[in-house]
Amino acid sequence: MSILETIHSSADVKRLSKDQLEPLCAELREFIIQNVSKTGGHLSSNLGTVELTVALHRVYDSAVDRIVFDVGHQSYAHKIITGRRERFQTLRQYGGLSGFPKPYEAPDDAFIAGHASNSVSVALGMARARSLKKQNYDVVAVIGDGAMTGGLAYEGLTNAAASGEPMVIILNDNNMSINENVGGTVSMLQTMRARPGYINFKRWYRDVFSRLPALYRFNHKIKEWFKSRLLPDNMFSEMGLYYLGPVDGHDIARLETAIRYARDVGSPVLLHVLTKKGKGCDYTEKDPDVYHGVSAFDPESGVLPPASPCFSSAFGDALCELAAEDRSVVAITAAMTSGTGLDDFAVKYPDRFFDVGIAEGQAVAMAAGMAKQGLRPVFAVYSSFLQRGYDMLIHDVGLQKLHAVIAVDRAGLVGNDGETHHGVFDVDYLSSVPGISIWCPASFEELRLMLRHAVEKESGPVALRYPRGGEGRYRDASLGPEIRLQEGNDLTMVCYGTMVNQMLDAADRLRAQGIRAELIKINRITPNEFPLTLRSLQKTGRLLVAEDVCASGCVGGRLLTQAGLHGVVLKNARLIHLGDGIVTHGSVPELMKLCGMDADGIVSAAKQVIGEEHA
Amino acid sequence: MSILETIHSSADVKRLSKDQLEPLCAELREFIIQNVSKTGGHLSSNLGTVELTVALHRVYDSAVDRIVFDVGHQSYAHKIITGRRERFQTLRQYGGLSGFPKPYEAPDDAFIAGHASNSVSVALGMARARSLKKQNYDVVAVIGDGAMTGGLAYEGLTNAAASGEPMVIILNDNNMSINENVGGTVSMLQTMRARPGYINFKRWYRDVFSRLPALYRFNHKIKEWFKSRLLPDNMFSEMGLYYLGPVDGHDIARLETAIRYARDVGSPVLLHVLTKKGKGCDYTEKDPDVYHGVSAFDPESGVLPPASPCFSSAFGDALCELAAEDRSVVAITAAMTSGTGLDDFAVKYPDRFFDVGIAEGQAVAMAAGMAKQGLRPVFAVYSSFLQRGYDMLIHDVGLQKLHAVIAVDRAGLVGNDGETHHGVFDVDYLSSVPGISIWCPASFEELRLMLRHAVEKESGPVALRYPRGGEGRYRDASLGPEIRLQEGNDLTMVCYGTMVNQMLDAADRLRAQGIRAELIKINRITPNEFPLTLRSLQKTGRLLVAEDVCASGCVGGRLLTQAGLHGVVLKNARLIHLGDGIVTHGSVPELMKLCGMDADGIVSAAKQVIGEEHA
Repeated sequence: MSILETIHSSADVKRLSKDQLEPLCAELREFIIQNVSKTGGHLSSNLGTVELTVALHRVYDSAVDRIVFDVGHQSYAHKIITGRRERFQTLRQYGGLSGFPKPYEAPDDAFIAGHASNSVSVALGMARARSLKKQNYDVVAVIGDGAMTGGLAYEGLTNAAASGEPMVIILNDNNMSINENVGGTVSMLQTMRARPGYINFKRWYRDVFSRLPALYRFNHKIKEWFKSRLLPDNMFSEMGLYYLGPVDGHDIARLETAIRYARDVGSPVLLHVLTKKGKGCDYTEKDPDVYHGVSAFDPESGVLPPASPCFSSAFGDALCELAAEDRSVVAITAAMTSGTGLDDFAVKYPDRFFDVGIAEGQAVAMAAGMAKQGLRPVFAVYSSFLQRGYDMLIHDVGLQKLHAVIAVDRAGLVGNDGETHHGVFDVDYLSSVPGISIWCPASFEELRLMLRHAVEKESGPVALRYPRGGEGRYRDASLGPEIRLQEGNDLTMVCYGTMVNQMLDAADRLRAQGIRAELIKINRITPNEFPLTLRSLQKTGRLLVAEDVCASGCVGGRLLTQAGLHGVVLKNARLIHLGDGIVTHGSVPELMKLCGMDADGIVSAAKQVIGEEHA
Repeated sequence: MSILETIHSSADVKRLSKDQLEPLCAELREFIIQNVSKTGGHLSSNLGTVELTVALHRVYDSAVDRIVFDVGHQSYAHKIITGRRERFQTLRQYGGLSGFPKPYEAPDDAFIAGHASNSVSVALGMARARSLKKQNYDVVAVIGDGAMTGGLAYEGLTNAAASGEPMVIILNDNNMSINENVGGTVSMLQTMRARPGYINFKRWYRDVFSRLPALYRFNHKIKEWFKSRLLPDNMFSEMGLYYLGPVDGHDIARLETAIRYARDVGSPVLLHVLTKKGKGCDYTEKDPDVYHGVSAFDPESGVLPPASPCFSSAFGDALCELAAEDRSVVAITAAMTSGTGLDDFAVKYPDRFFDVGIAEGQAVAMAAGMAKQGLRPVFAVYSSFLQRGYDMLIHDVGLQKLHAVIAVDRAGLVGNDGETHHGVFDVDYLSSVPGISIWCPASFEELRLMLRHAVEKESGPVALRYPRGGEGRYRDASLGPEIRLQEGNDLTMVCYGTMVNQMLDAADRLRAQGIRAELIKINRITPNEFPLTLRSLQKTGRLLVAEDVCASGCVGGRLLTQAGLHGVVLKNARLIHLGDGIVTHGSVPELMKLCGMDADGIVSAAKQVIGEEHA
């Protein structure tokens, strides 16, 4: 029996002898590599935090204490340790374990995770609840240096510092976020990394003076003097946090000591831990970025399957074309160069490429400033992460109707990353940005066409929303706000984006059953009063809309609003959407099926729309 | 002729002799006090930045250089200097000058302002545009210590530091934001304030060594050594910003020298300026907070009109009641204790009161952590500022359906603060938060009832939205999701919140003309399928909705959606709303009239709804 097989909780980790800890870490690494090579997932970040996780479970009990993981893509070892080893092969699969901490999965997962930089704020809220309710558990936030570039982390740190609440913030510093970190945060951390280990001095100091209690108070001054030599002020200590570190994040014994020390300080502590992303595996150590998030691969060689063409790469190519023609075109990313397809742009146009870190608000506000002074900024960002820039979209871009282009990648269901990553709110929140045009390409060529239109022809805020992954059977391209793809008299079926592929399949199958659907594809969600669709509805009297976004603000609702305003009377109408927008993880086809928006679901809904009438 | 009367631009300020500057500042102060005492507006912040503004115009030309004011409530002297003196009596009035910088008002206003902490990001975007387009102007951000508590400022600073772009960030440090600053940011700034003036050394150093060029390079090391003695690392210098200061913000000569020096550094500089809020006037110096934002008052004595009861104070009273009964009730504000009516709560329950600074994201994420661990957090915040917390509402609160209560103050049109402050997007963006209930009280008693319900009875996210100001003729209170206030057969009129007062007036006038409207008040915007309204529409066939929010996500649209889904056929429908949500400044009644949602506008729309039919 391996050591790992004996571990089901924090308590089991605590029972191990010190000699068993390194072997346990080796087993965890091997287990993670073997599993992720089959399920896909986040590899480098999890390999880098094995020792840190084991050390956390040596000190804390995750069933009672609250360990808040930031982003959460480093929580695999934690999941394996806390009773989920046997289910780990289901990671990120439909019905299986989530790739991120989820309280519904286990009480050991203190809080949901997925978006960056929230952990300190959340942990502070928990620490305050603990103190106000006079309860007795510990609270820890585990945050990476990448997440530290987000303004929310700064807000959390300054508030935590002022709170005086006993809590530990572990800065997992691997000198690298998804892309190379950018900006002043890095500069600060670099300075700190270079400093001698105060914690070693501290341990020595305590060892010596604990034996001489009479001298302790007098010697406090000596300690403070030592401290000021060893540990010059840094941002964290200036804020009022008790700064400890840096500590080698792969030395379990030292980590355990440091964490225990931090826990016992009794005020807000920042413990700076240095880890190596991808630690303990040749290929991930060499190219940690490549193995940040992977699909299934060969665990021996690390050879990854070749990348397929996707909307992100089509976007990147199209933007490079535009940049070649127009020197005022610039690209902005929030720590997602590769994910958004901007690798080539970054190489070809380095002076026009800006990675702001995990700081979507900054990206939008900076784009607004650029647009005001005559550049043509294009900010490529995942739909779900752009939520952080909502106020800046309204205040800095929208109120002045500035010409900033937002390339909204990962729109709609994204699949295995689950509820925190689905881009299902953007149709709603983007629509409230004053003066915005929202385009929905459904093919690579259409993306190219719409992007060119957005950059060259529009003059106000523009968003293009497109999904994760590649194109389907629809390969056409057009710029009409609405286009009719198929004529029919029995019902009007409406969609936008790549949902057109399921709609085409459904229309084919309906036709085979003698039902002729009029199929309309919306290219521009707003502004649009949908005249073509309304005319079609006057003919058919029956509406079916399918869209993978939340109910609030859905296009189906807008169509019905326009129908009501224009006196279009319907015999029946059905809107397929995602309700409150919470959808679990799984492959996109599985989730589409689950939500009734695969071809099967659409066919069956269409038959209902045809077969029934309003009372 | 006063000096002030000769000033119409930056160039005019530059033409003045040094001896004329202090008298100019005295004239500016007097002019501001006299005017604001009539128009109302932001007083203390503007009195505190008179010298800073004059110094900026000595160094820069605001018609060409870009001076980006953060928040912008300190821009009065700037407006007066740049050709708007004679119109200054129209400040904040309908059709008059805005109380904030507005590019549509004058090219000297580089960017819109109103929300905090964006200036560095915007200025960086401008600086990059300047450099990429090889243009030749200077870029300055003017940001207060209050705005420095927002995470967006941190994102802007770290990015500016890394950019290398020549730009100046002026930290206007008055050791006070709207409320006392909170948290680690203050702690950092306090340390910096205490340090000796490096800039004085610098000037001396340059004076001496500029005469000995041969020695200059050798002596660079001496300079660096001096610098390290005089200027220990702080957050800004660690980020890579060139830190200068602190400088006395009321000494024009020094300010001018410092700004000129900062401008010429040729890389991102942070110039730390110390100012006194309310400077130069007895009563504002004594109580700068009281005179932060004021209505008309007596300029001699400073005596303010007595405060009227308002929704904010009703909220504060109601929350104190709940807190007395339930120890798990806690209150959170983002630097708006007084504005949100929490003064009493803060005094009565200091251990359960949390001011997070201008950090709405932090407030929401912390509330989520509190709710997860069993507290009942109530975050009181202005509708427009809550936009900053949108992602946290979805990710941290909504996805786990945590029981956090958001008291959304300043919902709807707010009046004289204008487009950046109107709370006209929240009905849309709040509705997409999974599991949320949104309540709309229309009287103080209804607010009390709904708040109690939200805190005690609900189990997921809850928002209560209520306007600036006081109640009108409607004084009832009920908790039904929809209630019928008046019966009628001619048309169905629907509203929510205090719009009910205009609706009641309109219904009275319509009745006098023989038109009987059925008047329905929506109490809970979501979840709600509006069964009562749909039944009414089946009877009347005619719908009129009035709401002071943007078109996107408006309740009128949702009613029509439900009507369409339920087969309710309408003869006519009319939705009165704010379109793209951009509404200028002016009194609320003026703006209501402008937007056709005063009783006149509603009566006239109702007649159209009655008189016309869909084709």
